[in-house]
Amino acid sequence: MLQKTSEMKVMRDVIHGYIHVDLQVIWDLISAKEFQRLRRVHQLGGVFQVYHNAEHTRFSHSLGVYEIVRRMVYEIEGLDQQLSEREKACVMMAGLLHDIGHLPFSHAFETICDIPHEEFSKQIILGDSEVHCILCKYDATLAQEVADIISYQHPNELLNQIVSGQLDADRMDYLLRDAYFSGTSYGNFDLERILRTIRVKDNQLVVKESGIHSVEDYIMARYHMYWQVYYHPVARSYEIILRKIFKRMKEVYATKKEMFHNLEMFVPFLTGTPTISDHFILDEPAAYYGFTLLCNKEDEILQDLCRRLLNRNLFEYKSVHSQEDVDEIRNAVAKAGFDVRYYVKEDKTMQSPYLPYKAGDGHNVYVLSDTMDVSELSKKSVIVNSVVHGDIKEDKKVFYVKGEEESCWK
Amino acid sequence: MLQKTSEMKVMRDVIHGYIHVDLQVIWDLISAKEFQRLRRVHQLGGVFQVYHNAEHTRFSHSLGVYEIVRRMVYEIEGLDQQLSEREKACVMMAGLLHDIGHLPFSHAFETICDIPHEEFSKQIILGDSEVHCILCKYDATLAQEVADIISYQHPNELLNQIVSGQLDADRMDYLLRDAYFSGTSYGNFDLERILRTIRVKDNQLVVKESGIHSVEDYIMARYHMYWQVYYHPVARSYEIILRKIFKRMKEVYATKKEMFHNLEMFVPFLTGTPTISDHFILDEPAAYYGFTLLCNKEDEILQDLCRRLLNRNLFEYKSVHSQEDVDEIRNAVAKAGFDVRYYVKEDKTMQSPYLPYKAGDGHNVYVLSDTMDVSELSKKSVIVNSVVHGDIKEDKKVFYVKGEEESCWK
Amino acid sequence: MLQKTSEMKVMRDVIHGYIHVDLQVIWDLISAKEFQRLRRVHQLGGVFQVYHNAEHTRFSHSLGVYEIVRRMVYEIEGLDQQLSEREKACVMMAGLLHDIGHLPFSHAFETICDIPHEEFSKQIILGDSEVHCILCKYDATLAQEVADIISYQHPNELLNQIVSGQLDADRMDYLLRDAYFSGTSYGNFDLERILRTIRVKDNQLVVKESGIHSVEDYIMARYHMYWQVYYHPVARSYEIILRKIFKRMKEVYATKKEMFHNLEMFVPFLTGTPTISDHFILDEPAAYYGFTLLCNKEDEILQDLCRRLLNRNLFEYKSVHSQEDVDEIRNAVAKAGFDVRYYVKEDKTMQSPYLPYKAGDGHNVYVLSDTMDVSELSKKSVIVNSVVHGDIKEDKKVFYVKGEEESCWK
Amino acid sequence: MLQKTSEMKVMRDVIHGYIHVDLQVIWDLISAKEFQRLRRVHQLGGVFQVYHNAEHTRFSHSLGVYEIVRRMVYEIEGLDQQLSEREKACVMMAGLLHDIGHLPFSHAFETICDIPHEEFSKQIILGDSEVHCILCKYDATLAQEVADIISYQHPNELLNQIVSGQLDADRMDYLLRDAYFSGTSYGNFDLERILRTIRVKDNQLVVKESGIHSVEDYIMARYHMYWQVYYHPVARSYEIILRKIFKRMKEVYATKKEMFHNLEMFVPFLTGTPTISDHFILDEPAAYYGFTLLCNKEDEILQDLCRRLLNRNLFEYKSVHSQEDVDEIRNAVAKAGFDVRYYVKEDKTMQSPYLPYKAGDGHNVYVLSDTMDVSELSKKSVIVNSVVHGDIKEDKKVFYVKGEEESCWK
Repeated sequence: MLQKTSEMKVMRDVIHGYIHVDLQVIWDLISAKEFQRLRRVHQLGGVFQVYHNAEHTRFSHSLGVYEIVRRMVYEIEGLDQQLSEREKACVMMAGLLHDIGHLPFSHAFETICDIPHEEFSKQIILGDSEVHCILCKYDATLAQEVADIISYQHPNELLNQIVSGQLDADRMDYLLRDAYFSGTSYGNFDLERILRTIRVKDNQLVVKESGIHSVEDYIMARYHMYWQVYYHPVARSYEIILRKIFKRMKEVYATKKEMFHNLEMFVPFLTGTPTISDHFILDEPAAYYGFTLLCNKEDEILQDLCRRLLNRNLFEYKSVHSQEDVDEIRNAVAKAGFDVRYYVKEDKTMQSPYLPYKAGDGHNVYVLSDTMDVSELSKKSVIVNSVVHGDIKEDKKVFYVKGEEESCWK
Repeated sequence: MLQKTSEMKVMRDVIHGYIHVDLQVIWDLISAKEFQRLRRVHQLGGVFQVYHNAEHTRFSHSLGVYEIVRRMVYEIEGLDQQLSEREKACVMMAGLLHDIGHLPFSHAFETICDIPHEEFSKQIILGDSEVHCILCKYDATLAQEVADIISYQHPNELLNQIVSGQLDADRMDYLLRDAYFSGTSYGNFDLERILRTIRVKDNQLVVKESGIHSVEDYIMARYHMYWQVYYHPVARSYEIILRKIFKRMKEVYATKKEMFHNLEMFVPFLTGTPTISDHFILDEPAAYYGFTLLCNKEDEILQDLCRRLLNRNLFEYKSVHSQEDVDEIRNAVAKAGFDVRYYVKEDKTMQSPYLPYKAGDGHNVYVLSDTMDVSELSKKSVIVNSVVHGDIKEDKKVFYVKGEEESCWK
Repeated sequence: MLQKTSEMKVMRDVIHGYIHVDLQVIWDLISAKEFQRLRRVHQLGGVFQVYHNAEHTRFSHSLGVYEIVRRMVYEIEGLDQQLSEREKACVMMAGLLHDIGHLPFSHAFETICDIPHEEFSKQIILGDSEVHCILCKYDATLAQEVADIISYQHPNELLNQIVSGQLDADRMDYLLRDAYFSGTSYGNFDLERILRTIRVKDNQLVVKESGIHSVEDYIMARYHMYWQVYYHPVARSYEIILRKIFKRMKEVYATKKEMFHNLEMFVPFLTGTPTISDHFILDEPAAYYGFTLLCNKEDEILQDLCRRLLNRNLFEYKSVHSQEDVDEIRNAVAKAGFDVRYYVKEDKTMQSPYLPYKAGDGHNVYVLSDTMDVSELSKKSVIVNSVVHGDIKEDKKVFYVKGEEESCWK
Repeated sequence: MLQKTSEMKVMRDVIHGYIHVDLQVIWDLISAKEFQRLRRVHQLGGVFQVYHNAEHTRFSHSLGVYEIVRRMVYEIEGLDQQLSEREKACVMMAGLLHDIGHLPFSHAFETICDIPHEEFSKQIILGDSEVHCILCKYDATLAQEVADIISYQHPNELLNQIVSGQLDADRMDYLLRDAYFSGTSYGNFDLERILRTIRVKDNQLVVKESGIHSVEDYIMARYHMYWQVYYHPVARSYEIILRKIFKRMKEVYATKKEMFHNLEMFVPFLTGTPTISDHFILDEPAAYYGFTLLCNKEDEILQDLCRRLLNRNLFEYKSVHSQEDVDEIRNAVAKAGFDVRYYVKEDKTMQSPYLPYKAGDGHNVYVLSDTMDVSELSKKSVIVNSVVHGDIKEDKKVFYVKGEEESCWK
């Protein structure tokens, strides 16, 4: 049995009012050093370069996901009855820990080191960490179960869906939170109404027909947040420079290892396979300090790129309509004396993840009618059906260095 | 003449809706590396340890102060007419740059290095910086004027008051902003109403009598923010550990300089007088990375204190009613094997700055009656008068290490 | 020349912060008895029966429309320059007065008396009213111009569009306001952003391409407000009873005029053509008091229907899939002893006004590209295109009396 | 046993998110005609004349009080355990029904007919009403218990305090609600925090010491709402005209009864003792329609006063410093041909109810220290102590008719 805390503990939260904790294991996990490290990883890679208030971290988002999971398992009719107390605890922990594997600048870094954050999350939960030790103190199989939910492999499908389905706690928290901190209204939707209309049917989460409008609104909120916030070209420009810095570091490291003598935080990510200790050390402060040092190292490209990143002299961008558009820019950049491998980058956003909702990808939303039939959402919603069958929106841009230099740059 | 930007530039802001910029010099200053560095200094030292959403930085606050100054100089009846365009520009720049001298963890660091942030602000504005270079590009005397306003020494008293009087842009922005990000409602007050009721009389800012209630509300907002947020004991606990880390570093550095070979970011602050280059390098990421390295350095006290700071194993606290209370704790801590110089700290908050409003300290609020008489606020407001003559609230606490150790700490 | 007020007058408003007035004629119009009467007509007919907070009136909405018009004519690039001060004043007055012809329960009453509220608005502005007198005091042709804008017949097309185009001040205010008072988040969209991206091209309002997302969001807001709020079946049930009461009154009046001796407020609406004096007297209090009196008049159907309306014993409703569904209900109602002419009503909502946006109906939104080309919104927006070509959502319901009676009804 | 509804019923509410009902008796009471009548009585007499959005009614406030009581009895530690389910139900009903006796224009009418609304509430609950019938259906003694709580006479003191103590559900709801609808921020305070810190000690509600700041904030919210909203001179001007209309009606009725032939709604309030049927009929629509009719009756003073009320041509006001101030105005008004008995009124607001908090009046707030001692709030709070011992704020004004007439008045 997982023991209760002596009294309900609360943490004030801008989205949920309070985060409520009454399980000792949850409280202990929040105090684990790997969880506290999330205070040192921004929630949204480069977005704060364009929405300057979006400086929040994975820490508060993780608490928020936990809180929504907690409400789901106790408040959703059917779920409350169908899950055991242990299952409820497991899925709450999975919500809390699902992002514990994040590296700096969130998703941007996944491309850099080619390891999805879920992989690190799993390693931390199952490996030699404070988190793992805490889980084991309570119950020998807890860690494995929590890791399974995060990998969407728990035998009880419901638990997986709560953390990462189409109507999961993760997305619901991040849309509301990112809207609050970016200062846009796009991400707002009616969380209370959605929670009130989710039901369980045939061991799967479904939405009552009377809740369709709230779900449509939530899907449009995602659509708008993607295009207005997450894929904002200024944020992409920042993340492209970040990737170029790592590309260049790898190249330089291959021949000039000595240049990295006080840049140990980066080294494991330039060569072999980083461990979870390496992961722990590379939080955002470590990365930023590394970039600060690189501004004075003997590689001009790294010097320049790091200064651009730290001082927000980002790449320009243009929409791309043909290969000529790109070629023209590549030529101009080369002519201005820049290495095009580092100073030009084409970037396209259009694949399925960018769509807010796509029927038939195994992560559908299902609707429960008054007569207890279940149908896929796009069958019931004119709006969603239109979106599913409409053209795919895509956006091709080229990012490139702006030639002239400010006279005051130091 | 200070030139305009080609079109009004805007940045979305959670407090003001948008930050509006139409002077090129302001736009250039925002792009200066010293200003961009403010994105790497939290607004509220240790407050995010207790209000986890308070992760905002001096960057957005500085933009906010600028925006309020901009509105004041154009919207306040009398001010708009009385100030020249150049004076308006100067005071907007002063609002923007007033916090540019901040070191990590805001005010906590001022105690550590014994230099107020205004001193660094002045050095940056007048010294060898991008900020200074930009100001000079436009006008040779601009830098000095801006620095004078920040030091409250500009000959036009009105300009000084706008940035740091009792109803200044600085406080108005931080109360609203810190309330938004801490998720408390305490700091809210009616900014629109206050701006609408400020007037100029005898070259000083005054408030129309019809605005007294808004000002009372604002003063109470300050009072509550101080006690509920800024002086929250968990934040103070965090800041005490921070100070102890520096105390210990200074001591160790005196005898073991070699321990600091990759901790160069701290060294100038342990010995002589840091320059503005030293200041530029010591942003919060640098400090955090330094603390991370210290966790593995050969000094047990530093190891322990830095882990506590990074992983939020903060000091406990108790209210102090007598010297015996403190002695008892000191003895217990010593008995548990801790060095009391680093593991116990008495702390009292009660001095005048903690009071939201104190008549007669040269920073009064003046009220303009319908008959154009001016009187000090406490003469007109029952509430403020009560507060001024009431007992001073004070809070004495002792902060100390909690003995036992968690079995999972790594 | 239209004279200014001695100082800017403001009224605090929950949506716009403040309503700003600096033209004397606007201030005088607000004080006209016909405008003050709008405080006695709810904004949303029967919606407050389901969203109990939606008790706001046409008064605050009219002020809100005025305020948005005011901002549009002064803040929209191009509009500010292209319109004369007189045109600006005219369109502001048209915004203020566009709803002055509303009868009780808003649109529900238009069906009852078969006169659109715009017709009454025109008559009031041009006829023997305080409003008309005020307009004439300032300028002999003002009244006609204002009336023309409201009828979408002003020669300057721009003025008509500002008050009733696809991106008009009317809709922008009511979506935000009705969302605030219903307590739903559906109607929220980014007014600031839309105002910032509207331009004038070829004497028509267009939206810059960078504003497309805000417009998509606004169109979806309308869609959701229609289905979730304006067409909520409980509100329709209320409005159906209202229409049945008038149907019955007309019938009874034909044969029993004496029953209406203290119901004079209704009489002009049961027979001939009501004048604007009749219109002035029939505000919502008059109608409600009339219903209260009818509860004790000697017609059982009127007694019953009025009690239902006042005490919220509304009709039940069911979705209709076939004629049999309706017949079955008609039979049951008849069998229970009710007159089906008054106690059953089929109702379908699907016509074009219910769609949030329909290309090609003469009220399109046009988008201005970076290269200054203009195209219709659905050509540019995947979302809007999907909606335009998707299936039309329709909702057929039958509303009918519930047979049993509560034992406590008095 | 009071039976549950088949499922939790919810009504969306702007202040509480949702109102939750799961007791059938509560649901039935909400449907009672006397409760539905509250939709036809504004929450704040004349305040909507100055804050035009404050058009909300006693209906939503009553639901809100119910909802806070519901949360208090289930969420407050100690209260949940100490009260029986029946007591909880009783106090929830008392919260719901405490304002059911309100006449039009809320408190203004109490002065007019010299009967406090609580008296009517009691008569309705205990008399021949739908409300009474519903209560009796469930349990013969329910009505008496509910009425006792409302009169602060229930033997279980705790129940009385929940509905009308210093930290009662009534005030907490109205401050938040009136702030939302007036569009001011003054009334906001941290309801969640207060609910979390209330405890029960010696059968009385107390606040934990850690909640003092929230309580101080709440007390200041009251203070500001009183002066900024409830006692706003424009609202008082409206209410004074209202009282003058009734004063005049009484006088005229004494000699010209025939003038009131279709003004039956007023008659019981002009002479004898109104019954609850008279009360039921005199909702605000009835009063407004009566005023409309009076505009055309053969008494010039009533004609004029009613037009002023309906069309917002209110009385002017001035602060009074001496008897001469008043005399001067009386003379001017008389000279202009007005009857001073109806056209001049001195008004003073200063008595204890206007103070937000006054120690020692039997309605104190008590604070529970960590050591479980109880002390009165002003002993613990510097702010409250200052307020209690500070000067009493008072405001004397004279309200009077403005002589000239607008040429457009009809």
